[in-house]
Amino acid sequence: MKFCSHCAASITVKIPLDDSRERHVCDACGMVHYQNPRNVVGTIPVFGDQVLLCRRAIAPRHGYWTLPAGFMELGESTSAGAARETMEEAGAMVTMGPLYSLLNVAHAEQVHLFYLASMTSPVFSAGEESLEVALFSEHDIPWQELAFPTVKQTLEWFFIDRAAGILTGNHPVTVRSRDILPAEKI
Amino acid sequence: MKFCSHCAASITVKIPLDDSRERHVCDACGMVHYQNPRNVVGTIPVFGDQVLLCRRAIAPRHGYWTLPAGFMELGESTSAGAARETMEEAGAMVTMGPLYSLLNVAHAEQVHLFYLASMTSPVFSAGEESLEVALFSEHDIPWQELAFPTVKQTLEWFFIDRAAGILTGNHPVTVRSRDILPAEKI
Ligand SMILES: [Zn+2]
Ligand SMILES: [Zn+2]
Repeated sequence: MKFCSHCAASITVKIPLDDSRERHVCDACGMVHYQNPRNVVGTIPVFGDQVLLCRRAIAPRHGYWTLPAGFMELGESTSAGAARETMEEAGAMVTMGPLYSLLNVAHAEQVHLFYLASMTSPVFSAGEESLEVALFSEHDIPWQELAFPTVKQTLEWFFIDRAAGILTGNHPVTVRSRDILPAEKI
Repeated sequence: MKFCSHCAASITVKIPLDDSRERHVCDACGMVHYQNPRNVVGTIPVFGDQVLLCRRAIAPRHGYWTLPAGFMELGESTSAGAARETMEEAGAMVTMGPLYSLLNVAHAEQVHLFYLASMTSPVFSAGEESLEVALFSEHDIPWQELAFPTVKQTLEWFFIDRAAGILTGNHPVTVRSRDILPAEKI
């Protein structure tokens, strides 16, 4: 950020008088341009005992598998954004369930939120950001070819919790949460 | 947003070629300036059977009571941000518990996240953004003077769940979640 989006003057990084941390402040109009983490919202789309994954057609991690997810947009809820991404990337209509995982990726300035979701039919198709989309049983998950640590962690939790019988709809779902470290790669 | 923060040229709102919704696009360098919802993170600070509230010293809702909460900053997790706000606004040190509520406030372009938190001692003090800070028993909560619908809803859920005995630490905590409508005022 080099110029003020409000008046086009130059920006200085400094601590405003009433603040305690460095901000991008306009030299002319004084506007403080705050920067905040962004939410990535997605689903674990389930059909029977299988989970739907998308192979990425875009950077980063082109060619790797992911759960459908993307940046939350203005004007939508976390849940609605997750359902939208599932339709856009995987062509799948889902009935949204509860929030299942919240992963902080502080070094990427992101929070990843995954919802449980039930596919109403085994209908899916690759959207523009996907090379292919497929249903996987637990023993077929391409663990070595997953795109992001948040996806790997969410799938690991999901299969552990499912095996323990606590994702049946009769149990309250506890949100799984942890921080992802910069060094974590898949 | 009128000018490009990267090159200071003017901005046009249009749908980029590879997109499906309107974005702020630079006329000169072509940079797309995405806008996304922001997270407000806070706690329900509990000491014994009481909850800690702050009376706001800033707009909006100056003079009204709130749970300690504020915008999540770059480089921190949702939980760390909630603990930081609790210290900054209420001068209270807390042991962080699980995520308790997630409220979408789409019309304000915000997501509000409240964590259960235990105060390690009855020590608190008004930060710069608070007029006063106080512990309240359930029957003393100033329901008519709460600042935001997300705070009111979170406190309502909290007292319901506490009365039902499901916030004892022995039960898994289920995240409460709903969308706040534009018409909702306190
Ligand atoms: Zn300016
Ligand atoms: Zn530009």
